[in-house]
Amino acid sequence: MKTPVLLMDRTRILQNYQDIEKALPDFKIAYAVKSNNHPEIVNILKRSGSLFEVASLYEIENLLSMGIEPENIIYSNPVKPPDDIKSAAEKKVCVMSFDSVTELEKILPYKDNVKLLFRIEVPNEGSLWPLSGKFGCPSKLWDKIYSYMQKHSIKLSGITYHVGSQCENLPNFKSALLETKKAYQLAKSYGLDPYILNIGGGFPVYLGREIPPIKQIAEIILETIEDLKKDGVVFTEFYAEPGRFISGSAGTLLSKVIGIAERENNKWVFLDTGVFSGMMETVDGITYPLLSTGSGKSENVMLCGPTCDSMDKMFKAMIPNPKVGDNIYFSGAGAYTTVYASDFNGFSRPDITFLDSVDEQLPQEADLENHSEIAS
Amino acid sequence: MKTPVLLMDRTRILQNYQDIEKALPDFKIAYAVKSNNHPEIVNILKRSGSLFEVASLYEIENLLSMGIEPENIIYSNPVKPPDDIKSAAEKKVCVMSFDSVTELEKILPYKDNVKLLFRIEVPNEGSLWPLSGKFGCPSKLWDKIYSYMQKHSIKLSGITYHVGSQCENLPNFKSALLETKKAYQLAKSYGLDPYILNIGGGFPVYLGREIPPIKQIAEIILETIEDLKKDGVVFTEFYAEPGRFISGSAGTLLSKVIGIAERENNKWVFLDTGVFSGMMETVDGITYPLLSTGSGKSENVMLCGPTCDSMDKMFKAMIPNPKVGDNIYFSGAGAYTTVYASDFNGFSRPDITFLDSVDEQLPQEADLENHSEIAS
Repeated sequence: MKTPVLLMDRTRILQNYQDIEKALPDFKIAYAVKSNNHPEIVNILKRSGSLFEVASLYEIENLLSMGIEPENIIYSNPVKPPDDIKSAAEKKVCVMSFDSVTELEKILPYKDNVKLLFRIEVPNEGSLWPLSGKFGCPSKLWDKIYSYMQKHSIKLSGITYHVGSQCENLPNFKSALLETKKAYQLAKSYGLDPYILNIGGGFPVYLGREIPPIKQIAEIILETIEDLKKDGVVFTEFYAEPGRFISGSAGTLLSKVIGIAERENNKWVFLDTGVFSGMMETVDGITYPLLSTGSGKSENVMLCGPTCDSMDKMFKAMIPNPKVGDNIYFSGAGAYTTVYASDFNGFSRPDITFLDSVDEQLPQEADLENHSEIAS
Repeated sequence: MKTPVLLMDRTRILQNYQDIEKALPDFKIAYAVKSNNHPEIVNILKRSGSLFEVASLYEIENLLSMGIEPENIIYSNPVKPPDDIKSAAEKKVCVMSFDSVTELEKILPYKDNVKLLFRIEVPNEGSLWPLSGKFGCPSKLWDKIYSYMQKHSIKLSGITYHVGSQCENLPNFKSALLETKKAYQLAKSYGLDPYILNIGGGFPVYLGREIPPIKQIAEIILETIEDLKKDGVVFTEFYAEPGRFISGSAGTLLSKVIGIAERENNKWVFLDTGVFSGMMETVDGITYPLLSTGSGKSENVMLCGPTCDSMDKMFKAMIPNPKVGDNIYFSGAGAYTTVYASDFNGFSRPDITFLDSVDEQLPQEADLENHSEIAS
């Protein structure tokens, strides 16, 4: 088999979608396309009834061209190029986020055509990629935001946050909602009336360490939402935006050993995939569970990619006595791998191969098309 | 102007090439294609008489398709996929590096068709991207390498090293040669007869800090080579492999401010280019000198890219009161930017625009073709 290649499991994509849909029954699930934008994944999720979360106009145009309805797209990037806001509004992609006054200034001309979600800062401890700092308005600045909205008669449709990508820390899912409660109550005092709650993503996949199962995460979220209701914090529309949770565990990256070099105190194993051809997240410390087809006594080796770049090293792992030609499988690699890849040094990005079929478990494309024609 | 865009200066590419060629008169200059593989750069350098340094078979095939002769290509990746070694040898790309016994095992079937350069480990302190660790055989293992070569009658054509990318530390250029002396002398004791010296790259460009000028770096190198001769360490063929030095300072990246967000203690300025669309080296701490078209009181802001990814933040910089729509120019950005870029989140990679012409200063393509026909 030509390597590197990302082996994707259609059944698992569908199962992951159904698991989170079942765990969060009142929620609309919007797949974060940025985690893996392969048309086949989009197609499976479209047929399953999923919504889609996007970060850019390009992603919007791409989804529309695949027959996704604009009302099924959430534009969750809190900072958008000005022209892209205009285009999105024209294309009737209405639900969008913001977290600064500057963003509201850009959105102002289209305020009556959009549903705005205020992205607030929430604790990100314990997530592998904390998103606070770059995104999310800190509570000290909420008054400024709400004053601006009040002054310019901008409606607030909802509140959103992100607990951080691959959030392995259960309490974060609750503390984010407690912050939301404060943001909601303050909004009310400004005469604003948020009714949408978008809890973002961050639902973790297995990457070698114990993680809370989705059912447990969902229970905490649903319980806290009930508690909020008792305090008069009532939302009527709910969204969740899983990306990695749906595509991550459905993908296994297959790579080949191309070289082995002894260095002073350790052995380096060179693979035909590396940081620039998919394994970018290893730069930030991620490690993937792996399986080698080699045999012999296991050794602790440094895994690295094929380029001449020193940044192209991954992580240390125990593998049986490595040999050129051994296959290495990395699990949990369906998300944030191929989408990060470049052709740096001329080494090709992984192809994506789908392993199975879910056709029998899903309505056909044609049925869906019919359905939307009748509906419109 | 559509942004982001990399503005490339043809005159500067040519000037950089001529500067290093003049500073190192006995050396053949081989441009490291991986730093920026745009065909226009390759074309200018081909017409100037440059050789090319490559990291992969894809780069070889690409250069051959552009009319570069195989003897003008150096395959300097010390760890190569087995099939690619075979293909390179068949295509008569003969000069290649190695730094491990495993690599020699892969090269063994082609040993009589290749010229092998032994990549040794040298001090990398003071370079922004130390390459030791991943590449370069440590001195403790040289005996093992040389024994293997002796046993299998593999010829050693030369010695090579790399002081590390963007090496701003002048003494490294000397200490690498002192290591080379030891490797040369040990090789001789095994009956090996290296005659090529390939000093790799690492020649720095201005990125806001004082750097040694190329003339000064070259003087140290040439003096040390003379000293080595006195000790019987005599090379007769010399190569240098500049990449960033040729393409880096010839490129200015133009980006636009798309958003501004106040956070607790600082301001974040969102640009339409970021870590995934060219500015990958900022992850490792590089900062580019920059110019903003904004006006007003300068502020210390965090620059970040347009994606929803938390890794997509660059560095803090002083810029005049930022506004949406301001242009930001980053200088020294011609190397290791566009080649790293992906389309992550659907944000497009920078286009490359060439600003000027050097046609009058160079022989025409046709002349070169003629010349090589006569020569062959």
